[in-house]
Amino acid sequence: MNRSDSRQPDAHWRVRLHEIIFEADTPAGRAFDIVLIGSILLSVLVVMLESVASIRASYGQVLIRIEWFFTLLFTIEYILRLISVRRPLRYMLSFFGFVDILALLPTYLSLILPGSQYLFTIRILRLLRVFRVLKLSEYLSEAFVLTSALKASQRKISVFILTILSLVVVIGSIMYMVEGEENGFDSIPTSIYWAIVTLTTVGYGDLSPQTPWGKALASLVMVMGYGIIAVPTGIVTVEISQAALKARQATTQSCPVCGSEGHDSDAVFCKYCGNHL
Amino acid sequence: MNRSDSRQPDAHWRVRLHEIIFEADTPAGRAFDIVLIGSILLSVLVVMLESVASIRASYGQVLIRIEWFFTLLFTIEYILRLISVRRPLRYMLSFFGFVDILALLPTYLSLILPGSQYLFTIRILRLLRVFRVLKLSEYLSEAFVLTSALKASQRKISVFILTILSLVVVIGSIMYMVEGEENGFDSIPTSIYWAIVTLTTVGYGDLSPQTPWGKALASLVMVMGYGIIAVPTGIVTVEISQAALKARQATTQSCPVCGSEGHDSDAVFCKYCGNHL
Amino acid sequence: MNRSDSRQPDAHWRVRLHEIIFEADTPAGRAFDIVLIGSILLSVLVVMLESVASIRASYGQVLIRIEWFFTLLFTIEYILRLISVRRPLRYMLSFFGFVDILALLPTYLSLILPGSQYLFTIRILRLLRVFRVLKLSEYLSEAFVLTSALKASQRKISVFILTILSLVVVIGSIMYMVEGEENGFDSIPTSIYWAIVTLTTVGYGDLSPQTPWGKALASLVMVMGYGIIAVPTGIVTVEISQAALKARQATTQSCPVCGSEGHDSDAVFCKYCGNHL
Amino acid sequence: MNRSDSRQPDAHWRVRLHEIIFEADTPAGRAFDIVLIGSILLSVLVVMLESVASIRASYGQVLIRIEWFFTLLFTIEYILRLISVRRPLRYMLSFFGFVDILALLPTYLSLILPGSQYLFTIRILRLLRVFRVLKLSEYLSEAFVLTSALKASQRKISVFILTILSLVVVIGSIMYMVEGEENGFDSIPTSIYWAIVTLTTVGYGDLSPQTPWGKALASLVMVMGYGIIAVPTGIVTVEISQAALKARQATTQSCPVCGSEGHDSDAVFCKYCGNHL
Repeated sequence: MNRSDSRQPDAHWRVRLHEIIFEADTPAGRAFDIVLIGSILLSVLVVMLESVASIRASYGQVLIRIEWFFTLLFTIEYILRLISVRRPLRYMLSFFGFVDILALLPTYLSLILPGSQYLFTIRILRLLRVFRVLKLSEYLSEAFVLTSALKASQRKISVFILTILSLVVVIGSIMYMVEGEENGFDSIPTSIYWAIVTLTTVGYGDLSPQTPWGKALASLVMVMGYGIIAVPTGIVTVEISQAALKARQATTQSCPVCGSEGHDSDAVFCKYCGNHL
Repeated sequence: MNRSDSRQPDAHWRVRLHEIIFEADTPAGRAFDIVLIGSILLSVLVVMLESVASIRASYGQVLIRIEWFFTLLFTIEYILRLISVRRPLRYMLSFFGFVDILALLPTYLSLILPGSQYLFTIRILRLLRVFRVLKLSEYLSEAFVLTSALKASQRKISVFILTILSLVVVIGSIMYMVEGEENGFDSIPTSIYWAIVTLTTVGYGDLSPQTPWGKALASLVMVMGYGIIAVPTGIVTVEISQAALKARQATTQSCPVCGSEGHDSDAVFCKYCGNHL
Repeated sequence: MNRSDSRQPDAHWRVRLHEIIFEADTPAGRAFDIVLIGSILLSVLVVMLESVASIRASYGQVLIRIEWFFTLLFTIEYILRLISVRRPLRYMLSFFGFVDILALLPTYLSLILPGSQYLFTIRILRLLRVFRVLKLSEYLSEAFVLTSALKASQRKISVFILTILSLVVVIGSIMYMVEGEENGFDSIPTSIYWAIVTLTTVGYGDLSPQTPWGKALASLVMVMGYGIIAVPTGIVTVEISQAALKARQATTQSCPVCGSEGHDSDAVFCKYCGNHL
Repeated sequence: MNRSDSRQPDAHWRVRLHEIIFEADTPAGRAFDIVLIGSILLSVLVVMLESVASIRASYGQVLIRIEWFFTLLFTIEYILRLISVRRPLRYMLSFFGFVDILALLPTYLSLILPGSQYLFTIRILRLLRVFRVLKLSEYLSEAFVLTSALKASQRKISVFILTILSLVVVIGSIMYMVEGEENGFDSIPTSIYWAIVTLTTVGYGDLSPQTPWGKALASLVMVMGYGIIAVPTGIVTVEISQAALKARQATTQSCPVCGSEGHDSDAVFCKYCGNHL
């Protein structure tokens, strides 16, 4: 960016375009982002309305036209984004580039496969850009604490989920044998679905044990689920606590000699080079 | 208040009125508050009873009269409050001033719009004054720890809720396409409602997946919800922990001799040098 | 107890009886307690079986006789307890004395009021003595950590519950007006019941919103409940954490001069009298 | 193992077999484990498919043959395991030896007791070996933190569960008397099942209170359950936090010069005196 002056004039409008589309520092960039957010929300609302049978009957044609209008708008925006970035391919493969394509495809797909336009709502994910637009850098740092906490607990959670999945298969099979097809537990996959509904304490009630032994087993599963639900909460709480602690400690000075950071607040000497802080 | 002696005599009863209505230090003020709490509870009970069809059929007229009695009582009390405060407008715009008006309006509104008297129950919020009345200053400080913890976690929670809302829109749309209108998922908003019912583990069961793919997707959503429910708990726990820590630290004194800190609140001597604190 | 030698001989068997009934140090006391626990479990099981219609039809008379047998047994035991303690009245008014009476009354009451014998199951609470019998003093200390944590968080939790109750009344009233009697929300108390079922994420589904506005409001309540459920968990977690910390710290020495306890593990001087530990 | 060279030649292939079957260091051992995991997953899938009525009707014979193929395969594998270990009996009585047998029995049992082959899915537990195979030693250490946290909180949790069970019996009995058989609460065991469904916030809705008093009591139980669910979460969180702390402290070294502790694991110099660690 800072080398952009030395480039040919036609690159200049690309830099300007990049500023408008990707940044929110200039008034134009800010205006662009706010219009974009409004368009996303409106277009998602339109798809939602179109899915309601009574509204579709009366305004179906109008809503479809509005959908197409927004899709064309977002297509143009996407092309502009590709033009303005230095490495279009790299952008296409990034998280937001991927979301952008996913947000466009459904409408085009609906020409071949009617009904797929409802996946259009995936463009709501583009709203995650909102943090940047509103200059909510503090919010971003909060989001960072959350994601780093989740990342740190990823391993513990995958151990946990693997165990739960094995458990759910075993519980489902036993329940299938205890209750049987006459009580709605008509296959092991269905029983596993029931086990998940029960262990997560969702409890729809579309399937529930009818026999005394089934109820006894279900009671056991529920009490177990009671204890199990405590585990991910405990993991995430401890990780958030440590991430918050690290964030607080990391605000202290950097070493004047080696420039390293992350010293504890009570440190007197740099822990990497041994010089006085 | 302490300059009230130097003011004209007619202001004197206003000060006295203020003492009775707004404070609970004098016997009169305390009695007023207890009568008020009783009246609020009774009037809410009357509205509740009136909403039960069988009771309304037998005692409807009596209950409506009692409602009006309480509404007039609270109207007089509200006027007295406005008279006794120095800045009536400021009071009207405060939280409790707003609740006071909201607690009066429904009955008057029911003259024009029958049925709106049930909003009357909003006056239950006036009970939050109860903390002050019962001299539960410690309770207030506990409430303060809670609200400050919630305020501190506000940002993390709003990042979290925005993410959840986006997720719920996407899940709802996919489920609408997978299950379709014949299984009760008759529009995207309905499907989003289902997604919220499922992710929060409420699980009414008025809508539940019927197709194998729907059940598989729902299982995924439930396991996800399992992990997700841990996040706000983690956030709030860490904030409460830090608020509690801060509250404890604020009561601590340092030793006047050796300057050490971290003494318990009931310590008389420094635990490091043995000198009097 | 240690003065029991100087008393008249007839008191001696009372001391012995006390040892057997109230303590579990001697073989006789231990045997008594184990027989007692077995009797309690058996008698609760008998009442449970008697409540099942098909079993009652076949074995009703036998089960009722067994119930009476156990009730007479527990009555004799209760009288022996009263005889063996120094202050019978004080025992009668203690927690376990109260539970003992509650465990006896239902059967006698069933002579006058048929059906009340099912309250008999309250004698399961007598099982809480099991901790003492099995010499599980560590379990008792764990129970102590739990109860002291709950006691410490009592205030925060009552502030919390009062707020929730007010909220539930307001939500219930609004829902009653939005959904109305034709959708099952037939009175404000019923709507409040729905609000509690929803906020606590139980979600029976016997009542669920039918109108779009009702569903929207319910979604809001559920997301709110999602955040709210984090609060008591946060409170209790912090209290348990502090109770555990205190329990660990409190294992250090008592002051040799003033005998006070509860010094931190790094304390050098008594924080109460200032003498060297 | 390191003395295996000095043993007779026929023991050599046993050592080799042990390496392949029990270890994952050699290419052959790794390949064996991957094939094993694939076989387990496939065989569980086959049993699941066989339980679906429509699939069983068309492919029942084929699926049963595949089941028998896998069962024979696992039987051979089990025998090889027994041959290759030094102490076959000890292996048979270990956790994984027990799971291995449990995973074989159902198919053989189905010859006598049709339908029992569905217990076959218990072999999914064999997947827990996956951690070792994929060399996920860090995952194992995470699993260790989790299990040690659960073990440490075992006592608190058993005190908790015993209390809950007593509570559930009492609540169930009262509810049985309040609601009665005409509202579905047809016996005390059924009512206890309802109490567990409610307290754990599962809430199927197959049983729900119909009378006003029943609803009031249920509301109380739900609010109670709200507070109670916080307890195991709190216990587990604190234990995980302490286990994590211990894990971190165990990696810490003290400064050889000033003796201070609490250095980060990546520290090279003492942060208090500046000397090399």
